[in-house]
Amino acid sequence: MHQAQRELTVETAGQGLYEITRPVAGFVRDSGIRTGLITVFCRHTSASVIIQENADPDVQADLQEFFSRLVPEALSWLRHTSEGPDDMPAHIKGALTANSLTIPVGDGAMALGTWQGIYLFEHRTRPHRRRVMLHVIGD
Amino acid sequence: MHQAQRELTVETAGQGLYEITRPVAGFVRDSGIRTGLITVFCRHTSASVIIQENADPDVQADLQEFFSRLVPEALSWLRHTSEGPDDMPAHIKGALTANSLTIPVGDGAMALGTWQGIYLFEHRTRPHRRRVMLHVIGD
Amino acid sequence: MHQAQRELTVETAGQGLYEITRPVAGFVRDSGIRTGLITVFCRHTSASVIIQENADPDVQADLQEFFSRLVPEALSWLRHTSEGPDDMPAHIKGALTANSLTIPVGDGAMALGTWQGIYLFEHRTRPHRRRVMLHVIGD
Repeated sequence: MHQAQRELTVETAGQGLYEITRPVAGFVRDSGIRTGLITVFCRHTSASVIIQENADPDVQADLQEFFSRLVPEALSWLRHTSEGPDDMPAHIKGALTANSLTIPVGDGAMALGTWQGIYLFEHRTRPHRRRVMLHVIGD
Repeated sequence: MHQAQRELTVETAGQGLYEITRPVAGFVRDSGIRTGLITVFCRHTSASVIIQENADPDVQADLQEFFSRLVPEALSWLRHTSEGPDDMPAHIKGALTANSLTIPVGDGAMALGTWQGIYLFEHRTRPHRRRVMLHVIGD
Repeated sequence: MHQAQRELTVETAGQGLYEITRPVAGFVRDSGIRTGLITVFCRHTSASVIIQENADPDVQADLQEFFSRLVPEALSWLRHTSEGPDDMPAHIKGALTANSLTIPVGDGAMALGTWQGIYLFEHRTRPHRRRVMLHVIGD
């Protein structure tokens, strides 16, 4: 049984989904692990990791818009506003989505479905450098 | 340390929760693993996996209704409509719930609480054949 | 490769976030595992586990208020009301947040970001004794 870890850096340019399927798949390949489990962990509380359809980019735009409507910046009752009007909504969006993903690995590749891509979901308005920890364990 | 994998197929008949606790528990038992970790991974972006109360079926009906009201089909601003009015809401419901579950295994069984059952949560209107990948690692 | 498990008990005093970062970190330290994966699993369907900002307590208050507004007790269409007006909303909040967390371990510590804390998120109004299963695997 072996393990490997790598930190992935994602430069974001505002709210939206940033696909990271390729570097994650490359990490699994480089590890040499054929059967196992990979974890994709977001080291932030105002960004998420998410698995979504990778075919039609409209899906990603609609997803982002839904969350912006569900958690608007204009919520008058918010207390935590010192870091900007987009900060607390970003924390809430983070709580509503996933902080980490866990994906089985078989035959040396992730067991993703045909239309599944892995994305970093940036919830802040301004560009950020996001760190995502990858960990794989297996044989 | 050992691993095992099995793909579970779930035939759904429209939106709702479909319990899969029994086949998942059977997979753990068959693996012979006494202490470890099981992952239940949904290979789709318009269905989820979820742990919920398995006592009162009303809980499952209420859950489904809440999500249908939170993400109705009639959202006029949706762009991704080519695959039917229920498709983009299904992706959004998928993002709001879990794509995978990770459950510790002890004494040869999952460490589920008394009232916890494992469900596939179908978000599409029409019947689908859903594939769920099970992976267990341990001793 | 080694494993360890421990059940954590959290006494809650009503809705809100209860930090458990310290006992989880202590469990990882006690296990002696330097590189691996820790899982934090909530054995209930009306409470969650969540990673959130641990700097400003207002973040936790705002999070709790958002979920109380998104899933109010006064939803007239709820069927599952026999266990109190806060029970079904608690199940829904559980479905919207995480039942388990999976965090890579490196250099003997969790790979949490600078501002990340681990919390039990209690969704019921009255005090509860919550059980959280910790599992770590690694070298």
